[in-house]
Amino acid sequence: MGQNKRKLSGVFAPVVTPFRSDELALDDLRFNLRKLSKTDLAGYFALGSNGEFRSLNDREQIQVLDVFAGEKGNKVVMVGTGCESSRQTIEKSKLAAEMGFDYVSIITPNYFAKQIDGDTLQCYFERIADSIDIPVLLYNVPGFAGGVEIPPQTVLELSQHPNIVGMKDSSPTGPGKFLARLEPAADFHVLAGSANFFYPALHLGAAGGVLSLANVLPGPCCDLYSLFTQGEYDDAKELAFRLARLNQAISGAWGVAGVKAAMDLVGFKGCQPRHPLQGCTDEDREQVRQMIINEGFISP
Amino acid sequence: MGQNKRKLSGVFAPVVTPFRSDELALDDLRFNLRKLSKTDLAGYFALGSNGEFRSLNDREQIQVLDVFAGEKGNKVVMVGTGCESSRQTIEKSKLAAEMGFDYVSIITPNYFAKQIDGDTLQCYFERIADSIDIPVLLYNVPGFAGGVEIPPQTVLELSQHPNIVGMKDSSPTGPGKFLARLEPAADFHVLAGSANFFYPALHLGAAGGVLSLANVLPGPCCDLYSLFTQGEYDDAKELAFRLARLNQAISGAWGVAGVKAAMDLVGFKGCQPRHPLQGCTDEDREQVRQMIINEGFISP
Amino acid sequence: MGQNKRKLSGVFAPVVTPFRSDELALDDLRFNLRKLSKTDLAGYFALGSNGEFRSLNDREQIQVLDVFAGEKGNKVVMVGTGCESSRQTIEKSKLAAEMGFDYVSIITPNYFAKQIDGDTLQCYFERIADSIDIPVLLYNVPGFAGGVEIPPQTVLELSQHPNIVGMKDSSPTGPGKFLARLEPAADFHVLAGSANFFYPALHLGAAGGVLSLANVLPGPCCDLYSLFTQGEYDDAKELAFRLARLNQAISGAWGVAGVKAAMDLVGFKGCQPRHPLQGCTDEDREQVRQMIINEGFISP
Amino acid sequence: MGQNKRKLSGVFAPVVTPFRSDELALDDLRFNLRKLSKTDLAGYFALGSNGEFRSLNDREQIQVLDVFAGEKGNKVVMVGTGCESSRQTIEKSKLAAEMGFDYVSIITPNYFAKQIDGDTLQCYFERIADSIDIPVLLYNVPGFAGGVEIPPQTVLELSQHPNIVGMKDSSPTGPGKFLARLEPAADFHVLAGSANFFYPALHLGAAGGVLSLANVLPGPCCDLYSLFTQGEYDDAKELAFRLARLNQAISGAWGVAGVKAAMDLVGFKGCQPRHPLQGCTDEDREQVRQMIINEGFISP
Repeated sequence: MGQNKRKLSGVFAPVVTPFRSDELALDDLRFNLRKLSKTDLAGYFALGSNGEFRSLNDREQIQVLDVFAGEKGNKVVMVGTGCESSRQTIEKSKLAAEMGFDYVSIITPNYFAKQIDGDTLQCYFERIADSIDIPVLLYNVPGFAGGVEIPPQTVLELSQHPNIVGMKDSSPTGPGKFLARLEPAADFHVLAGSANFFYPALHLGAAGGVLSLANVLPGPCCDLYSLFTQGEYDDAKELAFRLARLNQAISGAWGVAGVKAAMDLVGFKGCQPRHPLQGCTDEDREQVRQMIINEGFISP
Repeated sequence: MGQNKRKLSGVFAPVVTPFRSDELALDDLRFNLRKLSKTDLAGYFALGSNGEFRSLNDREQIQVLDVFAGEKGNKVVMVGTGCESSRQTIEKSKLAAEMGFDYVSIITPNYFAKQIDGDTLQCYFERIADSIDIPVLLYNVPGFAGGVEIPPQTVLELSQHPNIVGMKDSSPTGPGKFLARLEPAADFHVLAGSANFFYPALHLGAAGGVLSLANVLPGPCCDLYSLFTQGEYDDAKELAFRLARLNQAISGAWGVAGVKAAMDLVGFKGCQPRHPLQGCTDEDREQVRQMIINEGFISP
Repeated sequence: MGQNKRKLSGVFAPVVTPFRSDELALDDLRFNLRKLSKTDLAGYFALGSNGEFRSLNDREQIQVLDVFAGEKGNKVVMVGTGCESSRQTIEKSKLAAEMGFDYVSIITPNYFAKQIDGDTLQCYFERIADSIDIPVLLYNVPGFAGGVEIPPQTVLELSQHPNIVGMKDSSPTGPGKFLARLEPAADFHVLAGSANFFYPALHLGAAGGVLSLANVLPGPCCDLYSLFTQGEYDDAKELAFRLARLNQAISGAWGVAGVKAAMDLVGFKGCQPRHPLQGCTDEDREQVRQMIINEGFISP
Repeated sequence: MGQNKRKLSGVFAPVVTPFRSDELALDDLRFNLRKLSKTDLAGYFALGSNGEFRSLNDREQIQVLDVFAGEKGNKVVMVGTGCESSRQTIEKSKLAAEMGFDYVSIITPNYFAKQIDGDTLQCYFERIADSIDIPVLLYNVPGFAGGVEIPPQTVLELSQHPNIVGMKDSSPTGPGKFLARLEPAADFHVLAGSANFFYPALHLGAAGGVLSLANVLPGPCCDLYSLFTQGEYDDAKELAFRLARLNQAISGAWGVAGVKAAMDLVGFKGCQPRHPLQGCTDEDREQVRQMIINEGFISP
C-alpha cells in the first residue's frame, strides 16, 4: 500500500472554527483538537467549509493553522488553500507546506462559474500541483462553489499527475462517477465528503471520508469505517443510515451552525458560526438534541 | 435632487484590472483611467466583478485602490468591499472610507448559499451599514454569487436605512422587481448592472447603469443615457439594442476576457485576465473585432 | 400595418378553465368569456398554462374549445396545441384550424429537456409550421417547460418562416433578448407573457401581452397598454408597478389557484384548479382580497 | 417474502417504443419483447421515459399496451400511467388494471412545478392509490419532471399506504435518502432507476433496478444483480463500473436515441426516436459501437 493510500484511508474531521462574539476562539479549537486526538480519526481537514475558511482573513487563517500545527500529533492534516486565482492559491499552499502539513485541498475557483470548464480546471490544478511541493487533493463541492463541478474525465487526467494524489468529493451524487473511471493502479484516492453517501462510496472503492459529523460523533463515524473494512455489512448499513439521517437533518436544516450546536451538546466546543451566519436558537438546539437522541447516539 | 441621486446618475464603468504575465499591470490601469476620465462617465466601480477582485490578494487590492485614488479626479468612485463575513467586509470598507472613496458596493455573502436567506442578508447589510461611515450600495449578482439573490422585500426594508443609499442589480431579470416596490421618496437609487437591460430599466426609474461595455465604449454608453434623458426613445432603443447584442455576444461567450480583448481593439489596455481565467485567442479576438464592426462602433 | 401585427397587438387573457368538484365547469367558462367580451381585450389564449391544458384529456380540450368557438365574437383566439411530439402537435393544431381559430401557440417540447437544443427546436417548429395552415406562435416558458428555452438565434431564424408569425415569451428575463435581434421589417410579433415585464417590453417593441391578470382585471391591463400607446409614460409606469406587484404576489404565491381566487373576488367565476393543484383556502382568499385592495383596484 | 417483494426484485427493462418514419413500429416492439422474454429479466416497464410515452397519443398508448399484453408471458409488467391531473391518471390506471398488468408507475405531476410540494404530492398519490385496484409504484425522476422530486418524508408516509408498494427512483443522487428512512418491515420496495447507481443502491437495500441498458444488455444487467445476491462484490463492482460508464456515455450524450442505436448494434430493433428527438447519425452509431467494444460487451 502506497504512502498516500495509507495516509488517506479512514475518517477525517473537517474541523470547525469556533467563534465567541464573532472573535476567533482559539482555545476552544485547541480543546476540540485535543479531544479529537484521542479518537480513531485518521486526521483533520483544516480551513475547510465547516472551518468557515472564507469568513476568515489571512491573518486569522494563519492563527488557526498555528493551532493545528501545535496539536497535529500523529494525525494527518490537510489544509484548504484554494482561492480564485492560481497566484493566491500557490501562495497559500506554499505557506501550508512550510508549516509542515501533509496535504493541501483545493476547491474549484467559481466566481466566474460560467467560464470554469473542465479545461480551465485541469489547467488550474496542474499549475498549482507543478508549483508546490506539498501533495494536492482536489476538492469538488458544487453546493459551495456556485455549481462548479470537476468533470469525471478531468479527474481521470489529473489523477495521472504525480503531485495530485486524491480528491474530496462533496457533490450530491457522491464519488461513484469518479471511482468508475479511475485507474485502480494509480496512487490516487477518493474521500467521500458527506455521511449521506460515505457507506455506499466505500463499496465503490472510496478510501475514506471527510465527514462533518466527525466533529460531533467521531467514534460512530470511525466505527462505520471499521465495520465496513471487517465486512460487517448489515451492521454497517444500519449505522450508516443512522448517521445519514442525522447528517441530513442537522446539516440540511442549519449547515455549520447545526454541526456546532450538536458539538456543544456532546461535549465539544462548537460555539457560534461567524456573522452573518446565524447560530442555532435554543429551540433549534433542542431539536438537534432530540435528533441525536432519536438516532440513539446520546441518552435522553 | 439629493446628493446621492445626483452622484448615482448616469453611466459607470466597472473598471477591469489589467494583468501582464499574471502580474498586476498598474500602468495599464492608470492609462485606462486617464482615458476614461475624458469621457462623460459618471464614475467608476473599483474592485468589482470585471475588476476580478476575488483574484487579488489584500495587498494587491490596495495597490489597485491607490491607482484609483490618484486618478479619481471629479469622478464618483464606488469600491467593492464585500467578503463572506461581516468582520472582513467592515474592515475593508473602513479602509475604502479612509482612502476617500465615495461609496462601498457590497456583494451578497454566498459560500453557504443555502443559509443566506432574506433575513440573514438584511442582518448582514444592516450591520455593515451601521459600522461604517461611507454610504453603502447593495450589489445583487446571483450569477457570480452562487445564485444568492436579495429578495425585493429585503431591498425595500434596507432602502429605509440612512446609510444604505442604492444598489447595483446584475440579476438576469433586471431591477424591475425592486423598482416596483421602492418608495419614490426615499434617497435610494438603483443602477442597472448590465447593458442587456439598461435601457428598459431607465424607463422603470433606474438612476443609471454600471456597464462592463463602458470599459470599451464609454461614449456610446453615455450617449444611450443621454438619449433617454432627452426623451429620444426611438434612437435610444436602436442604440440600446446594438449595445445589448454586443454585450451578450462578448460577455456571454468570454466574460471578462472578452471585455479585455474588446478594450485592446479600441485603444484601451485590457490585457489578459488572471489565471485560471483564459485570455481570448487570436481567433476569438478576430470574432470580437467583427462583432464590434457589425454593430457599427468601429470601421472595418 | 400587416394583418398579424394588427391582430397581435394589445392585451390577451390566457383564459382559465373553471372546475367544480374536479369536473369541467363549462357554464362558468362561458360566463367569463361573455364578461370578457365586453372589455377592450384584443383576444384570448385558450388552453394555455392558466387554462391548465395539460390537466385536461383530449375530449375535455375539445369541449373547452367548443365554448371558445361559440363565444369568440370579434376577439382573436390563439389555441395552445403543443405536445411532446411533432405528430401529436400537428394533429391538435389541425383540429384548432378546422374549428376556425386564429393562431396556434406551441410550447417547447421538454420531457427530454437535455436533448431539446436550439437545432431540435428549430426543426420541430419548422415541421409544425410546414404541416398546418393556421399561423404559428412560439411559446417560450422555461418555468413550465422543465427549463427549456428557445435561444434568441433560433427565434431569429424561425421569424423568417412565412407561417411563424410571433411568440409569447414568459421567460423570467422577458423578451428583450429576442426583440434586440429581430428584423423590424419581419411580420413577426412578440407578446410579453407576464405583467411583471409587460410595460418595459412595450418600450422594447413588444406588440402586446398575454397576462394572467387580464382574467381578473382586464380593464386596468388594457388601460396600461393604452397609456403606453398614448405616450403617457409616467401614468403607465405607476399602473405597471401596481399590476406587477399584484401579479408577483398572487401568481408568485399561488399560481393559477391565486388567479382563480382573485377572479371570484371581482365577479368572474374562477372556481378551483384541478386536483392535485390545491385551491386557495379562505385565509388565502382574504390575503388576495387585501392585496387587490392595497393596489387600489377594488374598494375595501 | 411478500408477493410484491418477490415480484419487484431483480432487473426490469424500461422498454423502448420503436418508430419507423415516425410511425409506431409494433412488430419491432414485439420482436424485442420476444427476445427479452428469453432473458433473466424480472419484467418490463411499459410506457416509461424510454418508451417515449409522452410522445404517443392515447390511441397509440393502447396499441403499445396491447402488444405488451400479448407478449407478457411470465414477466412482471409495470405501466406508466401518470398524467398532470388526478382524473387523467386514474382513468389511465384503470385501463392498465383492466388489461391485466401488474403495477402502475406514476410520475410526479410537474407542469406547475413550483406548486407541486410534498403535501400536494402526498395528496395526489393517495387519491390515485385509493381510486384504483392495481398496486401503485411512485416514479421519482426530477430530470424528466421539471425538477420535481418527492421528499423522503413524503415517501415514508406514502409507503404506509396499503396500495402503494414501491418506487422507481431515477434522481441523480439515487435512492439512498429514501432507503435510509423506510421501515424495513413495510412491503414497500425501491428500484434503482439508473445503471449509474444500481450497484451501490443494492448495498443500501434496493430490491432491483429499472435500467435503460437492460434494453441493450439484459444479460450483463442480470449478471450484476446475480453477482450481488451471491456476495461476489469484487466482480460485481467491476461489472457495475463497466455498465455505469457505458450508461453515462450513451444516455448522457444521446438519451433514448443512444439506447436505440445501441440496441440496433446488438441485435434488437431500436429504430429511431420520435420527432423532434433526433436519431443518432452514422458517426454517433460508430461511437456507440466503439464504447460497447471498449467495455468488452461485444467483439470488435
